Amino acid sequence: MNTAELGDRILNGDRRALARAITLVESGRSDHRSQASDLLAHVGKSGRQSLRVGLSGTPGVGKSTFIESFGMMLTAQGLRVAVLAVDPSSARSGGSILGDKTRMERLSRDRNAFIRPSPSQTHLGGVARRTREAIALCEAAGFDVVLIETVGVGQSETVVSEMSDLFLLLLAPAGGDELQGVKRGIMEMADMILVNKADGDLKATATRTCADYAGALRLLRKRPQDPEGFPKAMTVSAVEEHGLEEAWGQMQSLSQSRRDSGYWNANRSAQAQYWFEQEVRAALLARLATSQARSEMERLGEEVRKGNLSPSAAADTMLDTLVAG
Amino acid sequence: MNTAELGDRILNGDRRALARAITLVESGRSDHRSQASDLLAHVGKSGRQSLRVGLSGTPGVGKSTFIESFGMMLTAQGLRVAVLAVDPSSARSGGSILGDKTRMERLSRDRNAFIRPSPSQTHLGGVARRTREAIALCEAAGFDVVLIETVGVGQSETVVSEMSDLFLLLLAPAGGDELQGVKRGIMEMADMILVNKADGDLKATATRTCADYAGALRLLRKRPQDPEGFPKAMTVSAVEEHGLEEAWGQMQSLSQSRRDSGYWNANRSAQAQYWFEQEVRAALLARLATSQARSEMERLGEEVRKGNLSPSAAADTMLDTLVAG
Repeated sequence: MNTAELGDRILNGDRRALARAITLVESGRSDHRSQASDLLAHVGKSGRQSLRVGLSGTPGVGKSTFIESFGMMLTAQGLRVAVLAVDPSSARSGGSILGDKTRMERLSRDRNAFIRPSPSQTHLGGVARRTREAIALCEAAGFDVVLIETVGVGQSETVVSEMSDLFLLLLAPAGGDELQGVKRGIMEMADMILVNKADGDLKATATRTCADYAGALRLLRKRPQDPEGFPKAMTVSAVEEHGLEEAWGQMQSLSQSRRDSGYWNANRSAQAQYWFEQEVRAALLARLATSQARSEMERLGEEVRKGNLSPSAAADTMLDTLVAG
Repeated sequence: MNTAELGDRILNGDRRALARAITLVESGRSDHRSQASDLLAHVGKSGRQSLRVGLSGTPGVGKSTFIESFGMMLTAQGLRVAVLAVDPSSARSGGSILGDKTRMERLSRDRNAFIRPSPSQTHLGGVARRTREAIALCEAAGFDVVLIETVGVGQSETVVSEMSDLFLLLLAPAGGDELQGVKRGIMEMADMILVNKADGDLKATATRTCADYAGALRLLRKRPQDPEGFPKAMTVSAVEEHGLEEAWGQMQSLSQSRRDSGYWNANRSAQAQYWFEQEVRAALLARLATSQARSEMERLGEEVRKGNLSPSAAADTMLDTLVAG
């Protein structure tokens, strides 16, 4: 199948074609990269937009259960939902946070849902590019909502928030001391904090935790583009399926307000600019990652460590090598 | 004067030649860069080593007074002292934390001292390279101690600690609440914390502040290479010239211990490697800073922001331009 055919099938909403196309954009082979570029250019003309929802939460907050319940609620409304993952640990473990589809058994069988595990990549930059391309393919395939899941570690929240229209932080009920455990930078990214497990014995704790985070959010600078009350903290129960429709209502209200104000488009433009700059920088630095460059870096590094060459002189030599190579 | 002559004068301890050579390494002109490389290679053979002491402290802690008193104490012992500055703000303000030599009037008139203001550079990376080269020139000129001063903001402490053998943090007496104001990362860099202004009305507060910081330092992981008791907190009074000799004694004891254990040399090797890698990365990214590259980035960025080009496609185009250019 050529890329035009594959592209047309995607535009018709064919999930198999979509899965195949994502495999293509995940490939590092240069012929695959070139086909992927053609494909993305082909489907990019559709002009379709989904709501891109970033979702971060550390293991144990009930993220899979939330995604399943939330996704089922959306598909029950006739919406089509895609779930992608950015997993910074997959490079090391070879595993994937969405690798086990049985985690979301009901959703994975739903005709209106599409679940894609995180690719095993060597670095977060590679994962980011492929995830953005997978999002573009899902949008072209007509998905209404694309959920981009990540675990709460390191740089991955920044990556996901820079490719999302809305960013959600899923938290578990906890004592007041643990509020400090959420880094200020992560709090500042969140459009909504959802305190999960507001059920059974944990219900009261969840309500208290939610109030604590609502208080913390009020201390952050108000975003001029957003209506009063955002960023917002709410309780949900993924297990009992409580609060999900309310959360979805708030997400719709926030995104409508951002569309009306023009922020939505401005934000997508700024994100595109961000990724353009990131990719240029990453591609320049990737010249250091070839085996030839690495062995030259190692050779020069040894001279530097021994004091035979100054860091600057060695760097000049390395740069000459890169230009010649 | 050619670089060999200039180099020989530096090796003879000529302060004017040193000042002139530092001006040369601070220049961005490519012919100057090339002369600077020759000069550094010429004087680098001396094999002389000074004790490189990094010193950070926010405005108001009495840094200038401390450097003057500490420097005078060292020169009184027959030691030669150079003072350099890394000032991340100089790029914006055009000013310099050491620009006004009258701040250290006595020390600047001392034959055994050499004070050099921070150069006005466009970015911290450039300041770092030139400061390292200035350190190398001071060492070749036979200075026993090179003090590298910085203000406590942003990345500048990391830069200075990566070019120092010892790193000191100068603090003012303060209430217990302000202990939090020192970032953990900065605390972890410090080999010694000196609480200044332990004189007059502030003496008791300084003693208490010192105890607080000593407690905080004990909570940090002990460095296996250092003797018991380090990192250490002490009180000093730059105005009354108290505690300076004790602090110097501790600095000598720590550096002797590091020399004996082999850590000193290993650390200098690791620092050289760090700067080598930093410079290679910075030089690669500098290709984006030419006016031609910037205008192409701007042109492509506009297409990306409008949605006419994907970030990846634009990045590929940009990379082709850089290779061709």
